[in-house]
Amino acid sequence: MRIGVVAPAGRLQRETAERFVAFASARRPDVTIDLHPQCYLSHGHFAGTDEERLEAFVAFANDPAFDAIWFARGGYGSNRIAAAAVERLNKHARDKTYLGYSDLGYMLAALYKAGFPHVAHGPMPQGISHDDGAEAVARGLGWLADRDTACVEPSLEPGVPVAAFNLTVLGTLLGTQLEPDLAGHVLMIEDVGEMAYRIDRAMSHLTGQPSMRRLRGIRAGRFDPVPDNDPPFGETPVEIVQAWCDSAGIPFLGTADIGHDAANKVVPFGTP
Amino acid sequence: MRIGVVAPAGRLQRETAERFVAFASARRPDVTIDLHPQCYLSHGHFAGTDEERLEAFVAFANDPAFDAIWFARGGYGSNRIAAAAVERLNKHARDKTYLGYSDLGYMLAALYKAGFPHVAHGPMPQGISHDDGAEAVARGLGWLADRDTACVEPSLEPGVPVAAFNLTVLGTLLGTQLEPDLAGHVLMIEDVGEMAYRIDRAMSHLTGQPSMRRLRGIRAGRFDPVPDNDPPFGETPVEIVQAWCDSAGIPFLGTADIGHDAANKVVPFGTP
Repeated sequence: MRIGVVAPAGRLQRETAERFVAFASARRPDVTIDLHPQCYLSHGHFAGTDEERLEAFVAFANDPAFDAIWFARGGYGSNRIAAAAVERLNKHARDKTYLGYSDLGYMLAALYKAGFPHVAHGPMPQGISHDDGAEAVARGLGWLADRDTACVEPSLEPGVPVAAFNLTVLGTLLGTQLEPDLAGHVLMIEDVGEMAYRIDRAMSHLTGQPSMRRLRGIRAGRFDPVPDNDPPFGETPVEIVQAWCDSAGIPFLGTADIGHDAANKVVPFGTP
Repeated sequence: MRIGVVAPAGRLQRETAERFVAFASARRPDVTIDLHPQCYLSHGHFAGTDEERLEAFVAFANDPAFDAIWFARGGYGSNRIAAAAVERLNKHARDKTYLGYSDLGYMLAALYKAGFPHVAHGPMPQGISHDDGAEAVARGLGWLADRDTACVEPSLEPGVPVAAFNLTVLGTLLGTQLEPDLAGHVLMIEDVGEMAYRIDRAMSHLTGQPSMRRLRGIRAGRFDPVPDNDPPFGETPVEIVQAWCDSAGIPFLGTADIGHDAANKVVPFGTP
């Protein structure tokens, strides 16, 4: 198996990349991992210009030598290239698996909307730089290489389509050409570092969409850390999610085992 | 003239209220200002529960004794009551003028969508607590009491409809029942305290909406302060707004004299 790594959002530090490759190679010597040099480029906030990030992704995605594209890390910026990138993908790209989350939700959305069958929300190589991050990276690798079901979010049910997104990312693709049809889906959401009032505001927006009222239901992942609110907001993120689901008539289905942490499970988009 | 003050979002401190009333009374002894006691309530993040904020607004708005409703301050929370409030308003409410901005954009949107003819984006009583804030409060008062044109944003043109919003607030009402039809309008946007990458993301979302592509054009207000980005983002907020307008084919019309500051001008919604 051969995995290509590109960075449509933020830049990968070389030492993080080296730790990631060393870990992955030791764990799965049978898997070849190629990091596109674009991962190390820097252009302001981004891992290279929009053009550089776009070209690197398209080159690896369209290359039949790779079985999977693993997005290096989040940050911000994949919204700037997602639509243009998907327009340029070929049949080799369609056969591949794509794994990432957080800002990469824009890419996952565009790929899923375009009917790509192997799109998943889950850990990324950058995870290796965090406490216990090896656990997350191992999970991503285990899913990419073996479709190991132990790596997958446990609430998935046969026949029930599912998708997962960072709440803020999903909120900022609603109504755009990136928004996939999630009617009938279980939607799992998570976030990181957002104040409670921002989570509340984002849920107000999300549950106010006619498109989201066609969901089968919503599950709340983790939102840690939530910065302190002054005065205290008075509701946990899960309570906020549930309250907005209730008010919009969208079934609240409980929690989901996803988040910006080492326990983050893989959520393959579509119907298990 | 009689102005009623309510707080659909955050709570007004009593000392701020006293400074505001003293200033307004001295400047315009002919104008009576009544602050609803709800302004001082506290419920977590909000100036009272949703019910308390809703009832206070509806009571003052429907009361024929008032000529105008001046929203006390922003914060967060008017999205939680805006739709329910507007459904309960009567013909006296329709005759009134409404002034506020920031989080109150949710209320302005709902009122404008419902066809209320006197809805305006501009300074609020809370401004008195800021440096040079008296200048902003005087401007709001001058516009409410006299429709003083010196208080109005200078780019307005006869026959060209206009609206103004906080970018983050507008972004989180897009696609919901609060979104007014802004086809053919000049849209002015401003924000406060948002990182450059968040402004970029919000502009990506805004300009990706089919509804926003029917605007006559967009003007960029002020976005200060913009917290430092590491590494530097490389574009100013105005450049970010222009770049997204260009990429979406929405005319970028230049700057607008609005923002979270003492110079914030009044933007009456609709056609001058």
